[in-house]
Amino acid sequence: MSLADNHIVSSFDDDLNQLADKLAEMGGLCEKLVGESVDALVRRDIPLARRVIEWDRAIDRLQHEIEERGIMTIARRAPVAIDLRQVVGALRIANDLERIGDLAKNIAKRVVALDGQFQPPKLAGGVAHIADLTLAQLKEVLDAYTRRDDKRALEVWTHDGEIDALYNSLFRELLTYMMEDPRNIGFCAHLLFCAKNIERIGDHATNVAETVYYVVHGVPLTEDRPKADLVSADFD
Amino acid sequence: MSLADNHIVSSFDDDLNQLADKLAEMGGLCEKLVGESVDALVRRDIPLARRVIEWDRAIDRLQHEIEERGIMTIARRAPVAIDLRQVVGALRIANDLERIGDLAKNIAKRVVALDGQFQPPKLAGGVAHIADLTLAQLKEVLDAYTRRDDKRALEVWTHDGEIDALYNSLFRELLTYMMEDPRNIGFCAHLLFCAKNIERIGDHATNVAETVYYVVHGVPLTEDRPKADLVSADFD
Repeated sequence: MSLADNHIVSSFDDDLNQLADKLAEMGGLCEKLVGESVDALVRRDIPLARRVIEWDRAIDRLQHEIEERGIMTIARRAPVAIDLRQVVGALRIANDLERIGDLAKNIAKRVVALDGQFQPPKLAGGVAHIADLTLAQLKEVLDAYTRRDDKRALEVWTHDGEIDALYNSLFRELLTYMMEDPRNIGFCAHLLFCAKNIERIGDHATNVAETVYYVVHGVPLTEDRPKADLVSADFD
Repeated sequence: MSLADNHIVSSFDDDLNQLADKLAEMGGLCEKLVGESVDALVRRDIPLARRVIEWDRAIDRLQHEIEERGIMTIARRAPVAIDLRQVVGALRIANDLERIGDLAKNIAKRVVALDGQFQPPKLAGGVAHIADLTLAQLKEVLDAYTRRDDKRALEVWTHDGEIDALYNSLFRELLTYMMEDPRNIGFCAHLLFCAKNIERIGDHATNVAETVYYVVHGVPLTEDRPKADLVSADFD
């Protein structure tokens, strides 16, 4: 369906509710895929990884639907102020959720690619730990969005620094495993990217927090992310 | 400036031209920063890397301006068909260019972080090679967009597979350097991420190609990127 031949006849509030429903569906799916991609990595569950890869298409479809519906809403209702920010906020969050789905899919693709390679089980533990923290951040910020709770969004925004710090120590830990035993190098290199993907999921949760703040206050929270300083961003 | 208090009085064509000017500025800046970030990596030029990090802010500002102007254009002119696709296309491309700027900034941050570390010069050569190919793709697709040339866009879209193949062999090459000499591990791990950032810049060039096709034809090129198969995406 092209942007041109869409026929929405509902009122602005109906448009907004439909956007909210699709975003909630998208957010729930993202949480599911992020959790399952890491489970697949830890348990080396190839079928689960393949399901995650397949399900990411549904997230992409939802993002296209939200973009289309949001654009049509702006074109038909010409909303202003808070109404406009609600629609723009939905477009921005759908964009971040689509990226989160891609990152979960990338982890799942590595699980498939790693099948049969030498994989010391304990090494994936650190990745699972940072994933738990990141998933909690994602759930929290999506809840903050649903409630338009700028204070909870601000907390998520602030706590992203912890994920970055955890990622940086995990990065060093994985390098140590590589130096200890060259047989670890291939697997650890993939784990480095999995950890990086998870850290980036945290960044997108931070973007969502900034969008919640923008929707509520009408001004950007800040130009810089908490991680934007050179110290914590060493391993971007 | 919030989305609410913007006062555009120009005609739709003026709006479109202003969007085009800002996009051209953004595209030129992205090409510059991608090239300079890799130069900084190869030459270990810390001051250049710091300038890239600083300049990325300008790209972010342009993306916000384009989003704001594009949204206001849709709200005020309620364009349809090709007119609407022109605006939506500008919004999508600005989004990809903003990501490209981030990726160049990430490479530059690594250059700063790597300062003083053991860095065998020859190792960065492979990264420079994939960067040249990617930069050529970026220039080509931005030119294709300016001319609304869907055939050239399609060529860029097709050639992304070469960047992925090059990245995959570079990935294996860097792992070999790690196994040869543990002192290479730290530096090569950073190079792995630099190479990955460049490969992702290629993905965003591919996204731009898809947007050019969409603007011209009004239908999506495809749901999948050329790299979306599991073979070439082993190292996503």
